[in-house]
Formats: sequence, C-alpha cells, structure tokens
Amino acid sequence: MAGTTPQPTPPTSRTRSWWGWGWTDAHPDDAECAAMGALLPGTLDRPLPVPRVRDLAIAAPAAEPPGSLAHLVSTDPGDRAAHAMGKAYRDVVRALRGRPGRVPDLVARPTDDRGVADLLDWAGERQVAVVPFGGGSSVSGGVEYRGDAHRAVMSLDLTAMDRVLEVDTEGRAARIQAGTLGPSLEDQLRPHGLTLRHFPQSFEFSTLGGWLATRAGGHYATGRTHIDDFVQSLRVVTPAGTSSSWRLPASGAGPSPDRLFLGSEGALGVITEAWVRLQERPRHKASAAVAFPDFQDALRAVRALAQSDLSPANCRLLDSGEAALSGAAHDGASVLVLGFESADEPVAGRLERAVALARSHGGRDDGTAGGGGAQESPHGDAAVSAWRSAFLRMPYLRDGLARMGAIAETFETAATWDRVPGLIEEVRREVGEAAAKATGFPATVNCRLTHVYPDGAAPYFTVLAAGRPGDEVAVWDDLKAVASEVLHRHRATITHHHAVGRDHRPGYDRQRPDPFALALRAAKGALDPRGILNPGVLVD
Amino acid sequence: MAGTTPQPTPPTSRTRSWWGWGWTDAHPDDAECAAMGALLPGTLDRPLPVPRVRDLAIAAPAAEPPGSLAHLVSTDPGDRAAHAMGKAYRDVVRALRGRPGRVPDLVARPTDDRGVADLLDWAGERQVAVVPFGGGSSVSGGVEYRGDAHRAVMSLDLTAMDRVLEVDTEGRAARIQAGTLGPSLEDQLRPHGLTLRHFPQSFEFSTLGGWLATRAGGHYATGRTHIDDFVQSLRVVTPAGTSSSWRLPASGAGPSPDRLFLGSEGALGVITEAWVRLQERPRHKASAAVAFPDFQDALRAVRALAQSDLSPANCRLLDSGEAALSGAAHDGASVLVLGFESADEPVAGRLERAVALARSHGGRDDGTAGGGGAQESPHGDAAVSAWRSAFLRMPYLRDGLARMGAIAETFETAATWDRVPGLIEEVRREVGEAAAKATGFPATVNCRLTHVYPDGAAPYFTVLAAGRPGDEVAVWDDLKAVASEVLHRHRATITHHHAVGRDHRPGYDRQRPDPFALALRAAKGALDPRGILNPGVLVD
Repeated sequence: MAGTTPQPTPPTSRTRSWWGWGWTDAHPDDAECAAMGALLPGTLDRPLPVPRVRDLAIAAPAAEPPGSLAHLVSTDPGDRAAHAMGKAYRDVVRALRGRPGRVPDLVARPTDDRGVADLLDWAGERQVAVVPFGGGSSVSGGVEYRGDAHRAVMSLDLTAMDRVLEVDTEGRAARIQAGTLGPSLEDQLRPHGLTLRHFPQSFEFSTLGGWLATRAGGHYATGRTHIDDFVQSLRVVTPAGTSSSWRLPASGAGPSPDRLFLGSEGALGVITEAWVRLQERPRHKASAAVAFPDFQDALRAVRALAQSDLSPANCRLLDSGEAALSGAAHDGASVLVLGFESADEPVAGRLERAVALARSHGGRDDGTAGGGGAQESPHGDAAVSAWRSAFLRMPYLRDGLARMGAIAETFETAATWDRVPGLIEEVRREVGEAAAKATGFPATVNCRLTHVYPDGAAPYFTVLAAGRPGDEVAVWDDLKAVASEVLHRHRATITHHHAVGRDHRPGYDRQRPDPFALALRAAKGALDPRGILNPGVLVD
Repeated sequence: MAGTTPQPTPPTSRTRSWWGWGWTDAHPDDAECAAMGALLPGTLDRPLPVPRVRDLAIAAPAAEPPGSLAHLVSTDPGDRAAHAMGKAYRDVVRALRGRPGRVPDLVARPTDDRGVADLLDWAGERQVAVVPFGGGSSVSGGVEYRGDAHRAVMSLDLTAMDRVLEVDTEGRAARIQAGTLGPSLEDQLRPHGLTLRHFPQSFEFSTLGGWLATRAGGHYATGRTHIDDFVQSLRVVTPAGTSSSWRLPASGAGPSPDRLFLGSEGALGVITEAWVRLQERPRHKASAAVAFPDFQDALRAVRALAQSDLSPANCRLLDSGEAALSGAAHDGASVLVLGFESADEPVAGRLERAVALARSHGGRDDGTAGGGGAQESPHGDAAVSAWRSAFLRMPYLRDGLARMGAIAETFETAATWDRVPGLIEEVRREVGEAAAKATGFPATVNCRLTHVYPDGAAPYFTVLAAGRPGDEVAVWDDLKAVASEVLHRHRATITHHHAVGRDHRPGYDRQRPDPFALALRAAKGALDPRGILNPGVLVD
C-alpha cells in the first residue's frame, strides 16, 4: 500500500486482528459493514461473521524444535493462525470463509542473530520451510506457505528484535533491528531529533526488515522515498553464513551487496539489522490542492512538477472517481494534492511555484480541499489531516466490505510517462468490464498516482465491485489476471512497492530477464542450498 | 578519476596515445617534463623516451577467429598494444619501461548485439578470454588480462557501437549504445535540449558502457551523480543469453536486475545498451570559493552543506596542499569550491545561503579564487573555467612526471563522517612516511573531497614522490598497500568510483561480505559457465 505520515504509538493494550487489518477495536462493526454494503448493489444482506480461530481445523504441529530452541517457539493455535497469511483482500476473504492458507506448524521469535542462525540450521537439517515474518502486512502473499515439499512450516517472526541499537547523530544514521515496527522505530529515534521519514500506509503494522525485504515505498512522492535509498549497510543471516556489509555513504566496489538482498523477500536470507540514513525532522510544511477538469491536463502538470527542481513531498493525483470517494471533489474533477516539507527553511515559496505550474497546465484552485493557496504551519493543515485519517482507515473499510461479500482491493504499478495515460485508461476499462461481466454489476475502478518521477509515475488502482459472494477469491484472481495482462502489454512493472510474493509470481516471471533469473537462482542455490527460505517466492 | 564539465568534441584528426593518457598532441614535451621533474628532487635528469609499439616484442596472435567474424577483428600490433592496459600510473610506467601487460591476441569491434553474442560463442568454444573495453581509461587494471588459464585473449572493444538510438523527450530518456564516448553522447543529445549530465574526469576517453560496468561517479558533488541513478534499463549480452530489463522509472519487483550488472566490470556479461534518464541543460549557474584556515572546520562546513536542502552541484573541498597545487590558495588555507546549477530558476540565493553556512563554520571569503560572493552567469565563471582546465590537464601532467621517474598517482575512497577526519590524517601520514622511507625523499600526499553525502564523503588522494627510478611500480604497489590498510582499518571502501579491476582485488575481497561472494560466484557460474569474461575481475 502507499504511504502516509506517522501516527503516535498505540497503547499496547490493543489487540491485533488475526484475520483482518490492524487493531480489532478499529474494525467497522456489523452496522457499519451493512451500511457500506448497501452502497454496492449485489452485496450480502448482512456481514459475514468475524472468523474465530477455534473454528479452524488446525492440525498438531508436524515438527518439534529441539529443547535448546524450544523457548523461542510457539505452537499456540491463535499465534499460528495469525501467521498463516498476510493481509491482502484475498487473505481476508479466505479467513472469512474459513479457508485460510496453510497454517504454519511453528511460530519462532528469535531475539538475536544467533537464534536466527540456530533456527535456520535446525530447519535445514529437518527440511522445514522458513517463512520470515515482520508485521505480517504483506498484500501479495509474501508470508504464506503454498507448497507441499517441506516436512513442516515455521513462521520466523522477527518482532522480538525491535530495538534501535546505535544512533550516529553526527552522520545521521542508526543501527536498527529488523523486527522494529514503524511506530516503535520513530519513537526510539525521536529523542535524537531524527527520523527515518519512511511512512508506508502499513507503517503501524510493518517492520524495517519487511520494508527492506520488499523494497517498500514510503509516503513521499518524489526524491528519496524508497527504503532502498536509506540503506547504509545490511546484516543478513543466511544458511551459508552471515552477510554484513560495511557502513558506507556510497561505494563503487563491484555490484552492490545490499541491492541483492533488498527485495529478496526472505528467499536469500533473513535480514536482521540495518544501518539506515536518517533525516532531521521537518519543521516547515505547506500543502495545497489543485483541481483539474481534465485528467490528461493533470497528468501533464504532474509530469512538469516531477521534472522540475521543486521536489514536492506529496504530489498525489487523484482521478475523478478517487477524488469523489475521498471527498476531495464532487464535480468530476481530478485533484492534485501537493505538499512540501523541509527541516531547513520555509517552503511556501516552493508551494506557490508548484501551484502556479499546475495552473499553467489547466488546474484551478476553486472549491478544492485545502484551497489552491499555500498554507504553512509546523504541523500541516486540516485538509491533509482529514485526508490522512481517511487514508489510514481505508484498509479497515476494505475488510468491512469483504464481510459484505464485496470485492475491494488495490494494486499498483509504475511505467514511463509515454505509457501512463494508455495504461490507466486500459486498466480502468478492461478491469471494469471484466468485473461487470463476472459479477453482473457495474464496478468502480479508480486510480491515483502515489509516486512521481522525472521519467514516469506509479499509478495505484482501487477496485470496488459487488463480488459474487462465495467466489470472491476466484473473481478477484481473474480481475488481477486481466490487470496483469494490461501491465504486461505496457511493460509496466508488476509491482512498484507491494512486492512480488506469491500473488505476483506469474507477472514477475514474465518481467524478469531470463539471464537474471539464472543468476538469482544460482545465488539462491549458494545461500540457501536446502531450499528452506520462503519457498515459492521469486525463484523455485 | 573524479569529474568535470563537458568539453566540445575534439577534431577526429587527433591521435590517441597507445601508452599514456588522452591525445598525443596534448602530452607535455620533453622540456615540460624536465621542468616538472626539477620540482621534485630525486627524479631523473631527463625524461624517459616516449615508448614505441615497434620496440615491443608482440607475438603472433594465439588464436584466429572464424571467417564469419574476421571482419570484426583486428590483429594490428598498434591496436593490440593500445588494448593491453588501462591508464593507471602503473600502466603508464610499465609502457614507459617496455613491459606492458599481456598484449591481447585480438581486438574485436562488434557493431551490434549479434556480433557480441557470436564473438562470445566463439570465445567460449575456444577458451579465449574476453576483456570488454570501452574508452580504455581504467585506472584499476580493469581491461588487462593477467592470467594464464586461457588459450588466447580477445579485447572486446565496444566503440563501434556508438549511437544514441532513440530519444524520449517527453520522459527525458534515451536508448544509447554502450560504446558511445562521452563527447559523442552529449553531441547526439544536444539537438534535443537534453543532457545525461554525467561528466567523470575521463569524460572524453570513456564510454557509457564503461561507466555502467564500473558504477562511475560524475562531476557533481551531491544528489544524482552516479551513473547508477540514471539507469532505466540495461541490455547485457551474456554467454547464457541476452538480458534485457524493462524501461521503468522504479520497480519493487524483486532485487533489481540492473543493480547486479552495474559494477559487474564485464565479469557477468557485456553491457551493449541502456535506456538512461536525461535532464534539461542547466541555464542558471553560480559558483564561489570559501577559504578555511582550519581543515577540521572545513569538514564540518561541508557536512552541514551535505545535510542541508541546498544540493550544491559542486562542493569540492581542497586541503591546503591541494589548494596550493591548484593555485586556489597559497597561505595554507583549505578551499571549498561551491557551485550551483539549475534548468529551472536562478541559483544565486542558494549559493548565498551556502556561503553563509560555510562562513558560520569558520570560512572566510578574502582572497580566494572566485571570491566569496555569488556570481551568476549562464556559462559559469572564470575561476571555475581555470580550475576545470587545470583539472583536465592533470592526467597528462601525471604522465609527464612518470617520464621523469616520479610517482604521481591518485586513489579515492568513501567513508561515513565519523571516520573521515581520522582516515584522511592517517592516509596522509602513513602513505607519506612509507613514500619517504621507500624513496629517501619527502613525499606529498594531498586530499580533496570530490563527493559529499549527508552521511559521509569521498576523499580523493594525490601522491607525488620522487620515485625510485626503475622500481616505480613496486614502490607504488607498496604505497597502495599501505593506503589500503588504512582504508580497511576505517572500513572505508576500497573504491568509491574507480572500480575494483585487478589492482583493488585484495581490498575488495576483504570488504565484500562472504555470503555475497558466494552469491556472486554462483551468478557468474550461471551466466559465464566457461569463465571467459574478464577473468580475474571481482571473482575467480
């Protein structure tokens, strides 16, 4: 999912949902679910019940760790169920329908590298599949075992390794354990006046290690926003030994070791810690929204902004459907949400230049959320806060719609500017038609641009459809196949920041150059000779 | 070497030196060499003669290509001699002493991917080593064969593939053949109003493919300056097939395929073309120089600049020795050369803020080159031009000093800020002492920072010593070993942008994490199963 700004750390008394997004107390109740469902003809009359672990048929664990590792391992059914899948729409539906993915036999929570290495050694000897698990927020089937070649499955939960170990304030960097969740990471950095400033939408429920393993994209639209750019060095425990790269601001010594592990999704090793680059906390912020009657004009405006020196922190273009859904505009206009941030100096001037550039491409500043003028405050403005709240609420609403038998899911890509307009149009049309055909009801396919580059953009799609209650997973998989076909036709990436996991494997296999597949398979063979690490991800 | 701004394409009537840097007509003559030598006690009385190809004992080629490939292959002795080595100091000295590296048997100049693939097929069948060759400006032994396990050696010169094939002006990108030399590349882009804006010091004598294969650093001090950041996609011919990645502004689909080939130095495949990101040509430029009586103050000032939002295009800190040598200051001060550029808007304001920041850290603006005030012009200012000329002349002067039996070489690294001061001090002291001990004469070890980052910097060292005529290579190798030991002690990279080649292999092998070495070796085995590609580079 695509990012937002940080939330305060929630009280620890809250309970994570084993089957749905986030906190159980934030889930819409039955009445809210029914109200949402009423907006989509063809959904159920009443919500599916909240699934219960005790209704699942969870077998006894197929393997038992040795006594020396027993203290790191849980076989509690609730623990195991909560580690069976990520949090994609199709995961939520499978849980609601009582058919979750393969429930792991064991959940291990190592507290240091030694524990990780010992667990890998044991798993290698016993042919136990090891699925690394951070916050469990994967939306692409990244933390689920789907094979049958292993004797047992162990979910390797890193969240007991959750500390900021060292902070270098002079060089603005920190050594952080991979299992640190977003809010805890920022809480531990705050006393130093520093921030990682990496805020994916999953921020509350994802870890540094997960971000690194999936090449996560942060909230910010331009400049340094991908976690890749913040990596000084990585520590990775592999079955063939521990890889520890040097802390360097830059190096030209051969292919980057870190770049091989970034995006490796647990298939090459378990990332246990990283030195990451930090920033001073921004003191100046300004934001505005600009409406565009014509979406093509808006695309040209965004391209001009991305190719300028302005570097907006936020440059999120909502198409008319997305703008209407989020309340940003109700007159069929597209809306560009612009934001600037700096720790150094006021940013109102940059915002004014950006708004002027947007106007010169057909934007207008009447009646849009936040207005067209620049607002500068140390804490952002009300429109952005409202938008942020709605944005963070979205995954919860998705689960509420899933309980009504609806289809409600997102996917994302990136392509060069020449392909962006046709790609967006064809995804809207072809996925919309396929959804209508499959369900018999009109479907909604909206688009926003979450990240923009001088040479292209990352379109992010939301699909809302009535579903075909009982067949939601099959219908969704068909729609995703239609979408993937459009992406492939335009040579647009199968994922910009949601990772490959298992759900995107077919598209990934078509996108990845064959010689690179050979190299990656060879690298995997060298580092994971017994094939225990996250089997089915990236390579077979 | 570290970069500069572009020069106009030279007339084609000029002749490249087979043994020394650049154009033969730009070499210092005997009198100039003698004058330079007179400044360094302990050098020769008269310059070593310019070496001649006809004095070399060049054996008949040990292999002959099949008739179908004969039109791509040269066995001319001059051609072969010019492809025997790169242009490091130790290469120049070996040529001057009549002991060049192994002269390749064949020089092949394919004109398309098919030719490259056919040559690799033939070489694989015959166990012929293939050494990819761009402009031949390697300063780390990257284009030289040092083994004896192959039947013959073929230098694969890519410079017949020298065209910009496509330009996407909307998305500011171009598809460019790997053998395109810097000036030709910019000449072909100029009509489109675009620039790659990648200007290493070797710009005239190096190719896009060479930059990609070595992760070259450009002229600019901050922001996007490494060639890595400009890559949209790569096309790489390997013995196992051709790898062609998609043109994407960004992707999170697994580890980046391009990042495996970037920095692979010809060991994994032959890069034949790339889609690269371009920029508008800058219209606004401003520069200034600030002197610092105290080098430690200057380091703190540079760190503050690198951690600000200012993004100077140039932020080159010369220590007192370097400042004196280049004429920037003669009073023992260090000098910070600052430059700003933009295609968008005037940059004088940013320069003023940068100069003020430098002053607040102990900089003074009296009597330094270019003055402390901001100068804005479309073409830069006179001080920068003078500096640029001297800078481009340096490698020629180095060769002149080599002819006098002197040691004159550079090396570079990068480290986090906490390590930078100690590292610079120890390199100066330990290399200086080792040089004095080896030669019996005082040596000069100067330092400048060529690239700066929020989390560290890239120190670049120049060593000038009397040498021990006849033993220059051995003395230099010893000094380099001393320097490498200091770098290793500080966990500073063995190379920031000069590449590993063969000269940096010992340092690289210590720096690279062992599991990454396993993965890289496996990848090489998969892509180059017969081990013909640039043997000895990166992995064995």
